[in-house]
Parts: sequence; C-alpha cells; structure tokens
Amino acid sequence: MTNRWELSPDRCFDPNPTQRDLARELYASVKDLPLVCPHGHVNPALLADDNARFGSPAELFIIPDHYVFRMLYSQGVALEQLGVPTKDGTPVESDHRLIWQRFADHFFLFRGTPTGLWLSDALINLFGVDEPLNGISAQLIYDHLEAQLAKSEFAPRPLLKQFNIEVLCTTDPATDRLEQHQRLRAQGINMICPTFRPDAIVNLNTPSWHSHIETLSTVSGTEVNSYRTFIQALEARRSFFKQMGATATDHATLAAHTEALTEREAEAIFERAMQERATEQDAARFTAHMLIEMARMSVEDGLVMQVHAGSFRNHNTAIFNRFGPDMGADIPTTSDWTHGLRALLTAYGNDRRLQLILFTLDESTFSRELAPLAGHYPAVLLGPPWWFFDSINGMRRYLDLVIETAGLYNTAGFNDDTRAFASIPARHDVWRRVTCNWTAGLVMQGIVTKFDAFEMAQDFAYRLAKRAYRLPEQ
Amino acid sequence: MTNRWELSPDRCFDPNPTQRDLARELYASVKDLPLVCPHGHVNPALLADDNARFGSPAELFIIPDHYVFRMLYSQGVALEQLGVPTKDGTPVESDHRLIWQRFADHFFLFRGTPTGLWLSDALINLFGVDEPLNGISAQLIYDHLEAQLAKSEFAPRPLLKQFNIEVLCTTDPATDRLEQHQRLRAQGINMICPTFRPDAIVNLNTPSWHSHIETLSTVSGTEVNSYRTFIQALEARRSFFKQMGATATDHATLAAHTEALTEREAEAIFERAMQERATEQDAARFTAHMLIEMARMSVEDGLVMQVHAGSFRNHNTAIFNRFGPDMGADIPTTSDWTHGLRALLTAYGNDRRLQLILFTLDESTFSRELAPLAGHYPAVLLGPPWWFFDSINGMRRYLDLVIETAGLYNTAGFNDDTRAFASIPARHDVWRRVTCNWTAGLVMQGIVTKFDAFEMAQDFAYRLAKRAYRLPEQ
Amino acid sequence: MTNRWELSPDRCFDPNPTQRDLARELYASVKDLPLVCPHGHVNPALLADDNARFGSPAELFIIPDHYVFRMLYSQGVALEQLGVPTKDGTPVESDHRLIWQRFADHFFLFRGTPTGLWLSDALINLFGVDEPLNGISAQLIYDHLEAQLAKSEFAPRPLLKQFNIEVLCTTDPATDRLEQHQRLRAQGINMICPTFRPDAIVNLNTPSWHSHIETLSTVSGTEVNSYRTFIQALEARRSFFKQMGATATDHATLAAHTEALTEREAEAIFERAMQERATEQDAARFTAHMLIEMARMSVEDGLVMQVHAGSFRNHNTAIFNRFGPDMGADIPTTSDWTHGLRALLTAYGNDRRLQLILFTLDESTFSRELAPLAGHYPAVLLGPPWWFFDSINGMRRYLDLVIETAGLYNTAGFNDDTRAFASIPARHDVWRRVTCNWTAGLVMQGIVTKFDAFEMAQDFAYRLAKRAYRLPEQ
Repeated sequence: MTNRWELSPDRCFDPNPTQRDLARELYASVKDLPLVCPHGHVNPALLADDNARFGSPAELFIIPDHYVFRMLYSQGVALEQLGVPTKDGTPVESDHRLIWQRFADHFFLFRGTPTGLWLSDALINLFGVDEPLNGISAQLIYDHLEAQLAKSEFAPRPLLKQFNIEVLCTTDPATDRLEQHQRLRAQGINMICPTFRPDAIVNLNTPSWHSHIETLSTVSGTEVNSYRTFIQALEARRSFFKQMGATATDHATLAAHTEALTEREAEAIFERAMQERATEQDAARFTAHMLIEMARMSVEDGLVMQVHAGSFRNHNTAIFNRFGPDMGADIPTTSDWTHGLRALLTAYGNDRRLQLILFTLDESTFSRELAPLAGHYPAVLLGPPWWFFDSINGMRRYLDLVIETAGLYNTAGFNDDTRAFASIPARHDVWRRVTCNWTAGLVMQGIVTKFDAFEMAQDFAYRLAKRAYRLPEQ
Repeated sequence: MTNRWELSPDRCFDPNPTQRDLARELYASVKDLPLVCPHGHVNPALLADDNARFGSPAELFIIPDHYVFRMLYSQGVALEQLGVPTKDGTPVESDHRLIWQRFADHFFLFRGTPTGLWLSDALINLFGVDEPLNGISAQLIYDHLEAQLAKSEFAPRPLLKQFNIEVLCTTDPATDRLEQHQRLRAQGINMICPTFRPDAIVNLNTPSWHSHIETLSTVSGTEVNSYRTFIQALEARRSFFKQMGATATDHATLAAHTEALTEREAEAIFERAMQERATEQDAARFTAHMLIEMARMSVEDGLVMQVHAGSFRNHNTAIFNRFGPDMGADIPTTSDWTHGLRALLTAYGNDRRLQLILFTLDESTFSRELAPLAGHYPAVLLGPPWWFFDSINGMRRYLDLVIETAGLYNTAGFNDDTRAFASIPARHDVWRRVTCNWTAGLVMQGIVTKFDAFEMAQDFAYRLAKRAYRLPEQ
Repeated sequence: MTNRWELSPDRCFDPNPTQRDLARELYASVKDLPLVCPHGHVNPALLADDNARFGSPAELFIIPDHYVFRMLYSQGVALEQLGVPTKDGTPVESDHRLIWQRFADHFFLFRGTPTGLWLSDALINLFGVDEPLNGISAQLIYDHLEAQLAKSEFAPRPLLKQFNIEVLCTTDPATDRLEQHQRLRAQGINMICPTFRPDAIVNLNTPSWHSHIETLSTVSGTEVNSYRTFIQALEARRSFFKQMGATATDHATLAAHTEALTEREAEAIFERAMQERATEQDAARFTAHMLIEMARMSVEDGLVMQVHAGSFRNHNTAIFNRFGPDMGADIPTTSDWTHGLRALLTAYGNDRRLQLILFTLDESTFSRELAPLAGHYPAVLLGPPWWFFDSINGMRRYLDLVIETAGLYNTAGFNDDTRAFASIPARHDVWRRVTCNWTAGLVMQGIVTKFDAFEMAQDFAYRLAKRAYRLPEQ
C-alpha cells in the first residue's frame, strides 16, 4: 500500500547527511534508556488499580486533552460537540464515534504541530494504525483502536512497563491524602511518586480557599487558625508527601514575584484572609512571601522546588464559566525573573541544599534572565521548554538560547508534564531526537568533540533529570 | 557579460540539495497562482485612471518609499537631497537624475535587506535591467528605466494584469467618499476594494479631529453631535464601504489595549472631546473602547477586523515637523496582547461572526501571546509578519514561532501591505519561496508528509488569505 | 596519539559542503587582518611595562575571569576555593595548582559555551597544549603552561604583536590620570587608547560619590562645587582623554532612559547630592539627563559615545558583600529603547557629529527597537552582540535580527570587551568565522552576490569597527 501511514525513522533530524548520520548514532545510544518522568499530571488512579482502563478512543485522545480540543475549538468546533463535560451537567455529545469523526475531520489542523506528531506517533507506533487519519478513515481507525484498547496489554499498567518508565511523578494538591499513592506503595510499587503542590492553599484568592484550609486542618492534624499553624500544617504535609516518595514540590505563579514579609505582616494578612477581608494586594504579597517560605522548607527537608511562572489561567471567561479550568484557554504573559526572584535568591540562592527549577512561558527571558541566573546561583536550575514550547522548535530555541550561558549542567533534563499517558513515549522521543540532533550539530561545527557529544546525549536523555529531581537509583 | 545582474532561481531556498529540490517542486506548484492582496496602501487613483503613469524612476522607486529613503537618511543623506517634499513647501532636490545617482551611490547599503531584494527583483525581472546598480551604472540604468516607463505596458493598469493580481484592497479613511473606487466599479472593475480605516475619527487626539468629525457628518448624512450619532455615522460609513466592495476594516493602535466603557462613560468622553476638553487618558480609554465597538459592528456586518499594534509613530520630531508622517521614523514598541485584548475577546472572542486578524511589531509576543490566543479563540487569526518582519528571516521566525502552537489554519496567509506598486510581485514571491522552503524542511524532518506539504503550499500562497479576508470567488 | 586535542579548522561553519567551502574562502580573506579592539577592559599596566608578566596559569585563566568562575560557582565550587580575593582580606585558596585542578575537574561544565571555546583555543593554539583538559591531565598541563609563561614571548608585549592588534582601547574612570597611557605614549606607543567612562561621577548614588567628586576637582583643576563646575570639569577631562588618544566614551545604564532637565533642575539636584540629600529619583533623573549632556559634548568634541544598557549589577548581595563587583552576578533585565532614548535622539539624533553606539542585553529589542532606530537616525549605530551574546548563537541571532532592518552599515563591527588578554584572538576569530559563514549563507540563498560577500566579510572583520570608533589609520 503506497499510502501506508508511518513516521520517518529520521524525524527531527537535520537534512544534512553527515549531521544526520551522527544524530542517528547518538540517538541509537539513548533511545532505549528508561524514561524518567519527574513532572507530570497522570492520574495515579490509572496506575494504582490493575483493572483501570482508558475507555473509548475519544476518552483516551480527545475529551480530557486540552492540547487537542483547543485547536478544534479555535476553528469553530464547539467543546460540547467534542464531549467535553460542562460544569453544571448540561448534556454534551455522548456518541464517542461522532466525537472521533469530528476530530478526524479536523486532524489536518495539527499539521506542523507537536500535538500532531505525538498523536501520529501514538496511533502508528503504539496502536499500529497504518493509514492516515482523516474523515474517510475515521471509523475504521476507531474500530481498530477500540479492539486494541480491549486487549489487556493496552491497559495502563502493562503500558507503564512497555514504555520502560523508571519513575513517574504525579502532581497532587497539598491537601491530598495520597490514597492512590498509598495503594501503590502497599503493592510494592515505589516508582510512582507524588509531588507537593500547595497553590490552592497558598493563594489566598483561590475560590473556596476556606474549605481548602479546613481540609488542610483535617489532613495535617493541625488546626490551622493562624499563620503559625498554617506553616506547621504545610510542614507536616511536606513531611507526609516525602514519606510517600515525593522528592519535589511545584508552584504555579502568574508573575515570578517574591517578597519577604515579616512574621507580623504575614500573620496580619493571614488573619484578614481568615476573616475574608484580604485584598488582591494582600494575596499577591502573601503568595510572593510563601515562595520564599517554601524555599526555606526545601532547604530544610531537601524537596526540590519547581516554579512554573507566567500563565494567565482561564483567560476566556465564558469557557471557564461553562467548562471550568484547563480548557485550553490559559494564555502566557511576561515574567520578570531578574527583579521578581531576587528576594528568594537573596535568602537561599547560594544554598546548595535548595534546588530550584524554573519554568517559563516567556521565551524572551531564556537568554536575558534565566540562563544568567542559572549560570551563577548555585541553587538554580532551568527546567526544560514548557507547554507550548515542548515542541521541536521550542526545544531548539531553548538549547540555542540557554546552553551557551547556563551550560548544560545547570539544566534539569526533560519532563513531559502531561496528563495524556499514551503520549509519554512520543514526547520523550522528540526530546531525545532534538537533543541528539542539536548535539550532532555542535560536533559538525567543531564546538564539542564526539566523545563529549555521547556524554551530553546521555545527560539530556536521562542523567540530568535524575540528578535535578534527586531521584533515587532504582 | 560575466557581470550580468540576475537573481538566483533558487533564492530563499536552503542550500541542502534534497531540501532545495523539494522546495523547488513546491514553489513550482504555487508560483503562478494569482496574487491575493487583501491589505495594502496602493493609491486607487493609479488604477482608476487608464492614463495614470508612474512618473520618473525616482518617483517610482525613491521619493514616495520610506523603506528606501530611511536607509539613506540613516547614513547621512538628507531627505531634501532625495526630493522628499517638505510640509511647508521649502524647495527640495528636483533633479530626478541626481536623486537617482544618490540612491545608486548608496545602493550597497541594502545588502542583505528585503528592500534590496525587492528592488533588485523589480529592476531585473520587471524592467529588464541587466547590470548591477551602483554609482557607475546609475545614469545608464536611469535611461533604460525612463524608456521602459514611457511604454504603455509599464502603466499601472497593464501591470495589474501582468502581475496576475486577483484582488487588491486599498486602505481608506472612514470619511473617504471612495470616488476612485466608484469610478473603478463604474468601469466594471470589482477586484479593487476599499478597506475601512477609522483611526483619525476614533482617536480623539488626532490633529484636526474636529474637522474629521465635520467631514464625517457630511459624508454620512448624520449630524454627529453625540456619541450615539457618532456610532450611527460610523455604521453608515461601514455600510457604504461594504457596498463599495470592502470586506475588512483596519485599526492601528500603539498599545493593543481594549476596555469596555459604559454608554454613559463613552458619551461623557465624547462630549468632552467635542468641547475640546478631553484628556490624554480620555482619548486612550475611548480608543480602547472603540476597538470593542468596532468588533461589535463586525459581528453585525461581517467585515473582517484587522488590528495593527505597536508602532510609535513619528518618533523623530524634527523630521515630522519638516516632512510629516510616514518618513521612516516609526519605531516599534512592546505590546501586551494577553491583558490588552481580553476585554474585546470576553465580549466577542467566542463569536465566529467576528474574524479578528492581529499584526504585531513585537516578535516576542508571537509565541508567548499571539499563537496561544489564535490557537484558542474562534475569532482570532494571526496576520503575516508585518513591516520590518516582511523579510526572509522575519518570515522564518514567524513560521517557527507561530505554527507549532496556532497551527497553519489560524493564520491569515500573506499580504504585502505596500504602497510601492512595482514591488508587489517581488514581495509575494519572497513569501511563496520562504513558505515552500520552510514546508520542505518539515518534510525533510519527517514532520509532515509530502502530500500535506503541497496542500500547505497552496494554503500559504493563496487559500489562507482568501478565507481570512472573506474574499469572494472571482 | 588518537586523543590529540585540537580544534576543527572548520569550526563555526555550516555543515553543508557548498556553504562551508564558501565560508572557508571568505574566512581565508579576513583571518589575517589586524585585530581592531575598540572596546575592552585590558589593564593598561600590563602593556605599559615591558617587564609585566601574567603570573601563574590560575592568575591568567581563572582568578580574574568572572566568565570562568561564575560557571564553577553555579555548580557548587566556592569562590574561595578558586582563589578569588575577598574584600576584607579573609584568606582564600592560595595554592594555584589546586585552583587549576578544581578548574580542570569541572572543565566539562563549559561544553557548548563560548568560554569553553575561547579557553580551548587559547590553550591549544596559543600555548600548544595537545591533550584534553580534565582532572587527569590537569597537573601536566599546568606544568606545560607554567613553562610557557616563563618564556619571554609569552609576556604581554610580545603577545600584543603576535596577536596583530592594530589598536586596543581600554576603559578608564573619568577621574583617572591615565598614567599608564602617558607612559605608553612616552614610549611612542599610540595604539593603546583610553576610553572615557564617567559612570562613577555621573551616577549620584555611586558608593563614595563625594570622594570621586573630590578626585575630579583635583585631576581637572576645576573646583567642582556646582552643576556648572561639574560640567566644566567633565569637559576638561574629556579633552585630556582625547589628548591621550581616546576616541570614545562609555556609559553603563540600567534602563536606557534619557530625560532633559532644565539647567535649574540639574543644578538643584546636584546641590542636593553635594549635601547628601539626593533621592533615588534625583539620581535616576540626573543620570538620564547626563546621557543627553554627554551626547552634547560628543557633538562638540567628536568623541564616539557608547551606551551599554540593561545589566542589573551585583544581583547577589552576599557575593557582593564578600567579594565586591564583577563576580559573575550581573543579571540582565529589559530595556525600553524606543521611549527611553527619545529625549536624547530628539536633541541630537539627527546630528552626524554624534556617533552613538548602542549595546543591549535584551535581545528582544534587536529587531523591535534597535534595528529600526539605527535604520533611521543618522547618529545611531548598533554595537556587536554583547557579553552573554558574544557567542556563536548570539552572533547568529544578532545578524538575523538586525541586518535586514538596520543594514550592515549601521552596525559597529566587533569588539571583544574583555579583560582576559589571552582570549582576544579567539574572540575575534569566532566573530570572523560566524560572519563569514553567515554571509556565505546569504550567497547560497541568492540574497547577495559573491562580490558583495567578500566586501561584507572585510567590513565585518575590520572596516566597520574602524569607522564606527573613528579610529585613525595606522
């Protein structure tokens, strides 16, 4: 069949034959290394239960994936037509074959996008689809996928093995009891680790903050009624997460702003929040202060600290009101790391006990701010290209903008940051291909030796992530 | 003659032979497609009158083209020496041969610039010049051009045909009676369309705003004496433009700021403006509000809405005072689309009746803000790289920064945005070459199939622009 | 020996064989041109004294070079362990072999960095090291370097000749008596020129500003007790620097902000400063005003004016308190040239007697602001990629972002901006290689002719810097 759907074995490599040969050689040396997944959003319930299944092709690939449905939405397909559930339970499309048909009709929209490449990779190389997905082939491919998903080897647990994942970290609210993680550990599975994410309780203007604080009291066993007890409860929770295998925390912030409050100021703001009298400015200053507090706790308990900055969440009010958060409507904005992070770095930036991994959605800060910060402060590492920049060009720009100033060893390797479990191998594969090709380019241009290149390929693919997240040897 | 001046048939293509071959193949499939010119500044009088002529070589290439004379000015050639007319009529150089000589003496300044490439293309491929332009060849080439321009086939109308232009939109003040467009339509020529540009009446701090409002009253037949009648007059004008073939409006703004005023606030500001008491802040808020009003009207009348943001106009006061606007002294500045556009998008961003095409001079917003916005909101498309970025590298950066996140189908194809009629084919040719070469690169790297690549080449060259501007089939 | 350490003769060139061949040809035409070094920080005492020596390998390569020790510090090596002297004299590592060992142990950190390339080039091509530097080879290489440095041909003066440096400008405080420069001129050496840098007296919040003003009074022979006498003293100093061979001034500023004060305002602020009552805002406005004053003086005395903007100096307070400035802890921040420079350009931007060379650490301003400014204002030139961007990728981005809009002839060629004397040839070599390769790429893509390419290569390597800094023919 001439129209057989397949991916080039040389994808992401430079067309120059000499560079391509070396890229292939480097890639061959890393492609079978275990996957290290230190930051992501896979639901641990999928893995804690041996009987968990992915559901229909639409449930696996479309309905929960905002990378996918935002593109269709941008071209006029309503989210209801794609089966995305509404907040108030208003019915949406429930015919998964029809949802899949709409997706297939619009699959050409993903030409040249990383999402298109990941989807193609999963369909072809994981599920064995062999003709191009489009409106005509849609139903036959649905049949095929449904049959595959019915097989036991396409359940989450067997795929976890097949994917050769060495460690996979989830992201969990600070108030989570980590029941799934407890189940996993009870089964002797220690490679799935939680990550401590306290945003909902640290941001005073979170909707239903009070109820989060109540939950915090309950789960921590500390009655939170003051700033002091709030801090105690957070410390208790971090300790519990650490027992459950966590090696890191994660913090989302719109501006990368940090500011040290006095104990008294922090206490006063916290009290106003308890009385529902905190202002927007109170909330901003408290968040800025808590980032420093979290760095202090990291110095003490050794949990690696991640900061993801610059996403204006839920930009589209109508979509947020109808469907809730994470609907493809988060839009990046500028960050000022140089001024914003200074208070935190003044306090703990010279302390190697702190490992602070920074992620940006403002690429102009890579060469201007982040690489110089990472190339100086002992505590700072740069996270890989994030979200929209987890892409071939995003990675290339990152490598070109960051490595000359920060060096390779002030970066944190790769993480896939995904809730789309089936896309994990494809995402790591793109990173491994792009870094091998980029490193091959350095050899071609006489900048590093071939010996160095093989070392760097291992670092990019595996070692940097292990080291950055303080992951134990397996 | 060994020194024969010619352009490489492979210009703008990658040196890699395999990629180059595919780029050639793709280019061959689109190079003869009609030119779609949905946004530009050609004077319609040139085309409405069969007897219109371009004048001397200096009048065609130098005197009206700020892309050209700004570069000479930056290197010490006075605008007076180039025949650029002064506001007060102080005499300037009138010897067009001497102006041409000065231009030729400095032609090397354009090495590596898009203006240099367009000029070379027009001289070589349109006018048949065959030796390099420099101080020595200047007068012989002037003779040649003068002889060519005297021929009837080098008049605007025949060139319009020769260029294979399918549709060409001009940009016209909201108060324009569109007499040239009426003449054109009376001659059965419907392919020249006006575009509604209301900046001068919407920006309350425009010099002689009052006289623009008076003209608005006259041409609209509505006496404008309040915000309500102002809106009515604008709606009447849009309707008239639409009758005259307009499919789009155009709005220039320094900051991409939008803000909804209440009817009462808008009315109060308008009244202050009528009484010459409006403040700078009034003007800024009113402009921000009127962008939303214009979006509302677009939802109702279906005119595509273009926003060009980020140009600090007339940065050089001395030049502005002596020569007026559009003298090469407009300098870009930052834009904040994420916050700035939110009010407009909250009102109409989910409405597919609105087609909002965004243009920026702040490339850092391409990947950070614009591609994410276009990849989510149904109403948003991204315009092509604009002005300084209408260049080989500008296009490459745009494609690399935008397509992965926005996808190809949330972009608006190409427009030449030029008043330099003779440069139109050269500008489209650069776009077609760069997009074909870029798409060939995706095939080489295994990101899209060859089948997809031919589709994408057609989209880039022709179809996206037609669709974005809602242009009728011819 | 298979493991012989050497650099590729084709380093920095594109892997495409045709482009590489042309890059080689262009590079061969410029590689032996004299080095023009119009901006740097070499200590003139090194060159004024025939007996000056570089000291130990650690003193040459590590202890004074913040490019080197910042990277080691970022990975946990204390500055004390590297022999960096403390402000208060607390002892630090004094065993230079041990310092060298620590450096060699961590040399892999420089993979892919420009510092790594410069160090390799100096070790291999200047000092004849022939095995890779690492922890094992460290002491043998130390022995070798020590032996080389003991030879008379490795003293500063002979190297100055060997490097084929035509002119080398230092950077000197406005209050400097230029004794080393006087010594040099007394010896008939006119190729080492001072540069007038008044930051410490112009920035009212400089630590010990008063003592700088006292020194200014002494060295200028004008008692500085008012704004008027301050200006007179500055003019006198500029005149003295000019007599000593200076052709340029240099100004560092955090924000590229300029603002014209009235004589009265300037006088009032200066008085407050003399009485130690100046506010932060006073200082900011005074600096902004003095940039315009300095432009005025440049118009009068013809000294080229350099502005280096955007470095947040001494970001790391702990490091600054212990070790002082220039410790690798300067972090870039955003600049707004479009608004910031307008007051200065309104005053003098159209005057060709002013030559204003701009340097940025905010690459987003290259295409958005700086290239458009340079492509219009007669007084403005763009300096080469600075500091973190003095790198292969930094140069490529600069060329791609700047030349299309500003043109080649609104740029200022290259300068090495270094205090690391031994790295000078390597730095110029990278620039020459990168510009030759970039220009070869333009030929390959049909954008410039081969004839133009050879001209451009000469311009990049030599002529632009000579012209920009108004350097005399030797």
